[in-house]
Amino acid sequence: MSESKKTEASLVIGSHSFTSRLIVGTGKYDTFDTMRDCLEISGAEVITVAVRRDRLIDSEGRNILDYIDLKRYTILPNTAGCFNADDAVRVARLGREILEGLENPGADWVKLEVLGDKKTLLPDPLATLQATEKLVAEGFQVLVYTTDDPMTARRLQEAGASSVMPAGSPIGSGQGILNPNNIRICLEYLKEHDSSYPVIVDAGVGTASDVCFAMELGVDGVLLNTGIAGAADPRKMARAMKLACQSGRDAAGAGRIPRKLYATASSPEIGQIKLG
Amino acid sequence: MSESKKTEASLVIGSHSFTSRLIVGTGKYDTFDTMRDCLEISGAEVITVAVRRDRLIDSEGRNILDYIDLKRYTILPNTAGCFNADDAVRVARLGREILEGLENPGADWVKLEVLGDKKTLLPDPLATLQATEKLVAEGFQVLVYTTDDPMTARRLQEAGASSVMPAGSPIGSGQGILNPNNIRICLEYLKEHDSSYPVIVDAGVGTASDVCFAMELGVDGVLLNTGIAGAADPRKMARAMKLACQSGRDAAGAGRIPRKLYATASSPEIGQIKLG
Amino acid sequence: MSESKKTEASLVIGSHSFTSRLIVGTGKYDTFDTMRDCLEISGAEVITVAVRRDRLIDSEGRNILDYIDLKRYTILPNTAGCFNADDAVRVARLGREILEGLENPGADWVKLEVLGDKKTLLPDPLATLQATEKLVAEGFQVLVYTTDDPMTARRLQEAGASSVMPAGSPIGSGQGILNPNNIRICLEYLKEHDSSYPVIVDAGVGTASDVCFAMELGVDGVLLNTGIAGAADPRKMARAMKLACQSGRDAAGAGRIPRKLYATASSPEIGQIKLG
Amino acid sequence: MSESKKTEASLVIGSHSFTSRLIVGTGKYDTFDTMRDCLEISGAEVITVAVRRDRLIDSEGRNILDYIDLKRYTILPNTAGCFNADDAVRVARLGREILEGLENPGADWVKLEVLGDKKTLLPDPLATLQATEKLVAEGFQVLVYTTDDPMTARRLQEAGASSVMPAGSPIGSGQGILNPNNIRICLEYLKEHDSSYPVIVDAGVGTASDVCFAMELGVDGVLLNTGIAGAADPRKMARAMKLACQSGRDAAGAGRIPRKLYATASSPEIGQIKLG
Repeated sequence: MSESKKTEASLVIGSHSFTSRLIVGTGKYDTFDTMRDCLEISGAEVITVAVRRDRLIDSEGRNILDYIDLKRYTILPNTAGCFNADDAVRVARLGREILEGLENPGADWVKLEVLGDKKTLLPDPLATLQATEKLVAEGFQVLVYTTDDPMTARRLQEAGASSVMPAGSPIGSGQGILNPNNIRICLEYLKEHDSSYPVIVDAGVGTASDVCFAMELGVDGVLLNTGIAGAADPRKMARAMKLACQSGRDAAGAGRIPRKLYATASSPEIGQIKLG
Repeated sequence: MSESKKTEASLVIGSHSFTSRLIVGTGKYDTFDTMRDCLEISGAEVITVAVRRDRLIDSEGRNILDYIDLKRYTILPNTAGCFNADDAVRVARLGREILEGLENPGADWVKLEVLGDKKTLLPDPLATLQATEKLVAEGFQVLVYTTDDPMTARRLQEAGASSVMPAGSPIGSGQGILNPNNIRICLEYLKEHDSSYPVIVDAGVGTASDVCFAMELGVDGVLLNTGIAGAADPRKMARAMKLACQSGRDAAGAGRIPRKLYATASSPEIGQIKLG
Repeated sequence: MSESKKTEASLVIGSHSFTSRLIVGTGKYDTFDTMRDCLEISGAEVITVAVRRDRLIDSEGRNILDYIDLKRYTILPNTAGCFNADDAVRVARLGREILEGLENPGADWVKLEVLGDKKTLLPDPLATLQATEKLVAEGFQVLVYTTDDPMTARRLQEAGASSVMPAGSPIGSGQGILNPNNIRICLEYLKEHDSSYPVIVDAGVGTASDVCFAMELGVDGVLLNTGIAGAADPRKMARAMKLACQSGRDAAGAGRIPRKLYATASSPEIGQIKLG
Repeated sequence: MSESKKTEASLVIGSHSFTSRLIVGTGKYDTFDTMRDCLEISGAEVITVAVRRDRLIDSEGRNILDYIDLKRYTILPNTAGCFNADDAVRVARLGREILEGLENPGADWVKLEVLGDKKTLLPDPLATLQATEKLVAEGFQVLVYTTDDPMTARRLQEAGASSVMPAGSPIGSGQGILNPNNIRICLEYLKEHDSSYPVIVDAGVGTASDVCFAMELGVDGVLLNTGIAGAADPRKMARAMKLACQSGRDAAGAGRIPRKLYATASSPEIGQIKLG
């Protein structure tokens, strides 16, 4: 396969390359069995894990990493639960250390999440930028969670982020992509100088059509957790999400038909007869 | 497999039963080769074909049915191009005759389409109802194309239609599901006495997320043509549509998470603090 | 004022002409006082009243018409509560008789409503068409409530209706205009031969922006009841609805700026840079 | 009138109090005459004027302030055309100086706008925060233009802004309120400790229903320019915008009816019958 075809087919983030464009989390599952099944069914090659001690170790003292096949998956350590830049940087280093110890290829990257409010779980833009700069300086490949604000996205890219990951809507809200306009401008900004720069929608996805629609907008991947873990039948939703991601990717590349008021009309709002 | 599981997994319409829930048309393709590839890639088991002579035979005298593997597919003859009940009934009979001659299992059913206007291709409600009654009386299993009006849908079911197929939006408009509210009421009406009664969204689908979303609403299948045939890369879109249909079906059955303003809020519009 | 300016400024329906483009109902008010205040505040010149005996006379034997200033308002008798064509025709005649007795100018018209289902209050298309034909033959000026299906709207116009009144959404649902696409096609159809033919959105309006948006689509007026009567502060909502109707009318005629991804972009979906 | 009623009826921003809740700009008008008429028709009491020299003085050397009745309007000087904090601070001071010289009450406040990109005119979050802090320290009452990101809005309030003004959509885009979810969270954040804290939607408004809808969300006012100046008939649109703002304010306070699938259903998505 030629280099360009490989790029077309693969999700390339920094030094990593994957076939699947769906990244899934490990939180909120009822049991480790359900979690393991869902990870597998989702087809994900990248699993994001919160590495703060209070998240990594459950109430019975079990380490979530013991329940994931580390030979199979690339772990993407994340800084969930961090509400300032220093804390996030510390947790990122901890993740690197843990994954180096486990010889997982995910030791060199991090999903940076610096939140501003426990109630809404919205990101803190300034603290996120500061932590990005610091972690990039320390050699991390930073995949940074942010709002859908295009200007903030541009600043994070300029700060050296390997991928910018705008939220579709607030974490766990299930609202899908609330502002496609902003995602489109994010894509225009972030891919301005390099169309292969990876943009990933992270958070807010509630169901399969949200994933499909996100991919159709032209993003490179989707990261989600609650949408699967919180479904009544997580395994079935894991499969739905996998197919939706593939479907949306295909549709994005297939060149859809235009929207019209009706097939022979000139636009979605104008038909063939001018109103008086 | 038990009977109930089979029903769950299958799209059952009258005496027919299928695994795939996507039904695709044959119109508007650049070449028969592209058409054949797309039919195959879509995973469809049912192919709908316009049987009016001016549609069945192309400008070079070629019969479209000669380019479809009739051993593989169940043909669903349709009455596209008919603008009154009598014409539609005649064309339906013609379809039966042709398919009986070809020994295709599609001889006993018909996709009824009676349009009211060449410009918008919107269905004619009254003529559609009259043709349904007539064709049911003649022993056809009628799959009837209609608007998304729930009351009209109910009348067509009462007239004996084997499946009611509301439009998502006008034929070829690519607008997707313009009024999910109406589709939801259609489902409530049509499945009131028998939850297995097949409801199929027919027309208006522009891209994969439209199909996924339609299936998530709880419909039993999607019928489309232009969305694939008119795409810049029809083969890629055919695959997208196939995956979207499977994905949406899974998601519909998986019990999605609720929509909230943010994860800990009480509703999509209300947070945790009452505004003054 | 010249004739054409008068037409521009007035809502003309059959032989009637009004300045206000908002028509309001009298149902569901807590008290007659509240109702009277809201009618006045709304600025409406036309008040629609259900004339079936069980609707006209309340539980205490009071006739609603005794609480409306019949010198001030043109009453539009309606057939609410009718579920078949014969019943609706009878009630229309009753309305004529009552209003003739009261010497109200509304004796020569009727708002025709033939519903198909008590649960959803959706109109019955076929019965509505039959009743329209009959009432037109009897000399009524018929303002006919219908779904937003453009083809049904055209049939009702052809049957002689003085105004076709598509629903924005189901009666009392508060969902606003669920399918602007259909309203746009209704306008294209109904104004094809005469741009002054009056099209009125009837039902579904929940709040002021729904009215404003409906008028911006180019309809000639809005008819509503529950949106005001069911509000926590009906008087305040009556004023909101009045202003929204005037506002939307102005906006429709003012020629709005186009929608863009951002001000210098080429369309709502496309910016200035082509994505790879 | 009691104090509380006055507050209810008035838009209070810092030391200023107004009856009108619509603030309009002066840019992009064809002629000063049209501008003057539109300012008057809009009912605005506050007019925002760009005070950078290249914006204040037109190509013929005319100063826009000479064409506005400074006895009648409170001028809100703005920093349009500034792309970094220092520049914005300088321009704010210039505005103060000019308005002090003209003895206009607008000398003590400023609409702060620090943009990040000439192409999209999106605000620069970090530079906006820095300029806010500086101007507040210098005694300005700062009304700050920002994205709809709730966390950034909170930071600007914490920095001492007298009003936070989230964009509905990009300046001049005419897209209206693209993300009501974010505006709702902004309101929850900004009014958490003081429900009278003024929140104003600034930018993106294309037509009257956008203004009406914004006000219905519960914001205290709307600021706009292009929506009027760029309309085909700016005077007519000015009136539409005035009415829409009043209408939306009333509707917000009137307690609208809930949205239902149909009137007797339990929610916008669920009817009365459970689907199988």
